[in-house]
Amino acid sequence: MSHALILLAHGSSDARWRAPFETLEHDLRARLETPAVIAYMELSEPSLETRVAELYDQGHRRLDILPLFFAAGRHLRQDVPAQLEALRTQYPQAALTLLDPVGQHPAFVEALAGIVTSRAEA
Amino acid sequence: MSHALILLAHGSSDARWRAPFETLEHDLRARLETPAVIAYMELSEPSLETRVAELYDQGHRRLDILPLFFAAGRHLRQDVPAQLEALRTQYPQAALTLLDPVGQHPAFVEALAGIVTSRAEA
Repeated sequence: MSHALILLAHGSSDARWRAPFETLEHDLRARLETPAVIAYMELSEPSLETRVAELYDQGHRRLDILPLFFAAGRHLRQDVPAQLEALRTQYPQAALTLLDPVGQHPAFVEALAGIVTSRAEA
Repeated sequence: MSHALILLAHGSSDARWRAPFETLEHDLRARLETPAVIAYMELSEPSLETRVAELYDQGHRRLDILPLFFAAGRHLRQDVPAQLEALRTQYPQAALTLLDPVGQHPAFVEALAGIVTSRAEA
């Protein structure tokens, strides 16, 4: 199945808040063969629903959703699973997987520790 | 001047949301000689004001505040600078510095790209 990745950020009506996510999406496009696109949970477009529809129309059937969050709160434990249930009903041929938030990935914690260490010892 | 680091997270009334930050604080304590403590902007304690008071009372005069955020929105551009102004008036002998959010640090972006790459190619 053709595979694509959706990077799910919180979203903001402030374009300056969104800018680093758009930069990240741009940088990842240059590095990956697999399509990777940004979606926002609220306050800005494109939404998760918009991105799933786009990728499905492009023929992708395996869609992984990676939350760009430090920790899982109500959004990731309740709102997003409910959105995914609705999307699975709408697209029964798509395999939609919600991954753990990046903040819980060891590589992320290591990077943070490195930043803190370099700053603490400056 | 004795130096300490405050890791500033958004905060949540949900203890499960806070758990990864408390784990991070614990891990960093074992790795750093400089004190590093977590503070929350809202919805949970300890607040930034609580941490500044504690560290000041312990004799620390150079306090760096590292926001555990992906991007700077209203909180980091308006609310936190206003809190810091009030704290600087209250503690004129302390040097309080607000650092860029960790999400804008190159090491962080690299770690994220690595996570995404390993997942996209799985």
